[in-house]
Amino acid sequence: MKKRLITLTTDFTLKNHYVGVMKGVIKSINPEAEIIDLCHDVPAYDIRAAALTLRDSHAFFPPGAIHIVVVDPGVGGERKAIAVQAAENFYIGPDNGVFTYVYKSDPSYQAFEITNGEYMLSTVSGTFHGRDIFAPAAAHLSLGVDVKSLGDPIQNVVRLQIVEPELSGGIVRGKVLYVDSFGNLITDIPEQLLDRNTIIKIGSYTINGVSGSYSEAREGEMLAIIGSSGYLEISVNKGRADDRIRSDNDKEIVLCVTVENNDKRAL
Amino acid sequence: MKKRLITLTTDFTLKNHYVGVMKGVIKSINPEAEIIDLCHDVPAYDIRAAALTLRDSHAFFPPGAIHIVVVDPGVGGERKAIAVQAAENFYIGPDNGVFTYVYKSDPSYQAFEITNGEYMLSTVSGTFHGRDIFAPAAAHLSLGVDVKSLGDPIQNVVRLQIVEPELSGGIVRGKVLYVDSFGNLITDIPEQLLDRNTIIKIGSYTINGVSGSYSEAREGEMLAIIGSSGYLEISVNKGRADDRIRSDNDKEIVLCVTVENNDKRAL
Amino acid sequence: MKKRLITLTTDFTLKNHYVGVMKGVIKSINPEAEIIDLCHDVPAYDIRAAALTLRDSHAFFPPGAIHIVVVDPGVGGERKAIAVQAAENFYIGPDNGVFTYVYKSDPSYQAFEITNGEYMLSTVSGTFHGRDIFAPAAAHLSLGVDVKSLGDPIQNVVRLQIVEPELSGGIVRGKVLYVDSFGNLITDIPEQLLDRNTIIKIGSYTINGVSGSYSEAREGEMLAIIGSSGYLEISVNKGRADDRIRSDNDKEIVLCVTVENNDKRAL
Repeated sequence: MKKRLITLTTDFTLKNHYVGVMKGVIKSINPEAEIIDLCHDVPAYDIRAAALTLRDSHAFFPPGAIHIVVVDPGVGGERKAIAVQAAENFYIGPDNGVFTYVYKSDPSYQAFEITNGEYMLSTVSGTFHGRDIFAPAAAHLSLGVDVKSLGDPIQNVVRLQIVEPELSGGIVRGKVLYVDSFGNLITDIPEQLLDRNTIIKIGSYTINGVSGSYSEAREGEMLAIIGSSGYLEISVNKGRADDRIRSDNDKEIVLCVTVENNDKRAL
Repeated sequence: MKKRLITLTTDFTLKNHYVGVMKGVIKSINPEAEIIDLCHDVPAYDIRAAALTLRDSHAFFPPGAIHIVVVDPGVGGERKAIAVQAAENFYIGPDNGVFTYVYKSDPSYQAFEITNGEYMLSTVSGTFHGRDIFAPAAAHLSLGVDVKSLGDPIQNVVRLQIVEPELSGGIVRGKVLYVDSFGNLITDIPEQLLDRNTIIKIGSYTINGVSGSYSEAREGEMLAIIGSSGYLEISVNKGRADDRIRSDNDKEIVLCVTVENNDKRAL
Repeated sequence: MKKRLITLTTDFTLKNHYVGVMKGVIKSINPEAEIIDLCHDVPAYDIRAAALTLRDSHAFFPPGAIHIVVVDPGVGGERKAIAVQAAENFYIGPDNGVFTYVYKSDPSYQAFEITNGEYMLSTVSGTFHGRDIFAPAAAHLSLGVDVKSLGDPIQNVVRLQIVEPELSGGIVRGKVLYVDSFGNLITDIPEQLLDRNTIIKIGSYTINGVSGSYSEAREGEMLAIIGSSGYLEISVNKGRADDRIRSDNDKEIVLCVTVENNDKRAL
C-alpha cells in the first residue's frame, strides 16, 4: 500500500507539549507513520487562517497525504468531527470551515462524521480532540482503514463565506487576507487580474506596476509582486510592509486594495 | 529489535541550531533513529515545567520510547548525567528533578549515572551536554546498547518537592501549575476532587460549576473545565484566562484556587 | 546507495506554511527523504547569521548530508542559485555568502549554478525559490542525481568578509557574533587564544578568568566560558548576558571584547 504522509496544522503553537503528544498518539497506532508539521502558529481560533494555510500548501504534498487541521474553538461542543476525502487526499478536523477551500477545489469531495469510538483513544477529553479523535483517525487511515468505517457520510458541511474581489470598470477591489512572517501582505487578487502596468492603491500608498522580484525595488521601498501562491502581494524590499501599513493580521478584511489596469488585456 | 522512538524536551527554543545539532548527533550514531520534538519552549532553566511537560506526555508515546530532557542550568557542574529506566521507557537527562513524576509513576524505576565515555562524543563541552552526552546516550540505547553499560546504578536521585492540593472541610486549595499557549490556567486539582456543581474561586473571580466544553460558556466568559490531562483548568471561551487574571507562568505558585463542592459525592 | 539526510535552515520562522511546503516538495520527489530542521529563526535577511548557523552545525550531521539554506533577500533577482559539494556533503542555496564558512573549511569545494529546469518545479515563482528550486534540487540529489547535472560549475562564489580577532601585545580584540536564546553572547575569539587566567573586558564589565561551567559563577553573576563551538562566550549563570549588556543581535559588530592573557603560554 502506498505510504500516506500525515501533516499537522494547528493553532497550538509549539509552546506546549500538545503537538508532540499528537505525534506520540499517531506513532503509537502506526509506528511507520511519517508526520510533517505544516504550521502550528495559525492565530488562535482563526478558522479562516487555517483554511488559507491548507489552500496554499496541500498541492505541494505527495498525493494520498492525510492533512490534520486542528483549529477548533468549538471542541467538545456541538460541532462535528469529520474526515473528508478529496482527490486522493484525506482531511481530518472539526467541521467548522477549515476545509472550505478543499470543498471548493474538489466539488466531488466526500465527508464523513467521525463517530466510531474504535478509532478514537479510549478516553475522549472535552478539550483536546486533536489528541483523542483527529490524530487516531489519521493514524488509522494511514494504516489503510477505510474512511467509511470512521462514521456515516454527511451532506452539509460548514463552509466559510469567501468574498471574491470585486471587478467593475477596469478596477479590482480586493483585500489583504493575511500577513506572513516577513511582513508581506498577501491579498486575494489573483495574478490573472493583473498586468505589469497595474496601479495598486493600498492605504495612502500608490504603487505603479508589478515587480518581478523584490530586488526590482530599492531597499526599503514598497512594491507589488505576485506571491508564491499566485496572488498579489504588497512587500517592502528587505523590510516589512505590515509595519509600513498599519494592519491586523487576524481579520479577513484588513485593508482594501484597489487595482487599476492600464493594459486592458489583463482584464 | 523493537524500534525505540526518541523524544526531545528542552528549554533551547528553536531560535538557534542547538536542537537541530542534537538531531544530527543522534542520526550520526543511529541513522535509523526516529526523533519527535516534545517541546523546546520550556521556560529557560525551569526544571518543574520540564517535569510537568513529561508528566502530561509520556503516556501517549509508544512503549519503549526514549525521552531526552535537557533543562539543565547546572550543565558542566556537579549535577550527574543520568539514564532512567521506568516501565519500558528510558529517560535521559540531568539529575536535577526533571524526572520527578517518572519516579512517582513507577517507583520501581532504575537510574544509572552516565559516565562511560564510549557513549559520549569524543569531546565533551562544559555547556552543551544535550549534544555531547544526552543525545549520544539516547542514540546508543536506540541501537540496543544495554543501559547498564552507560554507567553505574545510583540510588539517590534528585526529586522536586510536589505540594499536593490541600483538602479540609469540603474545600480544596490548589494552585495554577502552568499556563498554556491559549492562556488556559492548568491547576494541580485532579478531576476526582470535583463535581459539576463545584464552586471555584480564583483571584477575585468565582466560577459556578465545571463545564463539559469551552462552548458551554459564552464567548469571552470565564469557565472551569477538566483539561486534557485530567486536572481543573480555568479558561475563557475563545479568549485568554491569563490575561483576565494576572499571572506568572514560570513560578509554581501562581495563584491559589479554592474549590468548594456542593455535592459531597465527589469528596 | 547511502541515505543522505536533508537539513533546512531558513529565515522563514515557523509562523507560516513555507517550511512545511518545502518538506512537501521534497517528499513528493523523494518519498524516502529524511528532513531535519536546523534552524528557521535566522533573523530575516541575515546572511551572516545563516552562515554562522551552518558553521556551528554541519560537522554534527552524518557525512553525505544535504544542507539547504534559504536566507535569500535577493530571491528572483540576479543572484545565482547554487549547489556546493564540499567534503562528502552538499549545500544548496543562494549564492550570497551563506556558504562562506563551507568554502573556508574545505577549499577544494566545487560549486555549480542550478539552471537545469528538469530539477525544479514546473513553475518557478519570483519569491519562493526555497520551494521551487532549492527543495527540488536537494530532493533530486538525495535520489542520487549527479550534482553536475544541476548546471555548470562556477568559479567565483560570493563570500562574506570575515574579520578575524586582532592580536597585539598579548591583547586580543574580538567581537560578539551572535546572541543565543539564553542570552549568551557568542564571540569570535577561539579558545586557543585564551587561558584560565585571561581577563575579559566587555562594555563596562571586567571578567577575571574563564569558567569551566556556568555554575562556577554565582546565580546571576556574569562569567566567561568556552562555548559549545569552541569560542569565548559571555554568560550569566541562570540569567541573560544580553539583558546585562545592551546589544543588538543582528549586526556583526555588537560589542568589542578585549582579552588579556596573563599566562603567556596561550598566546
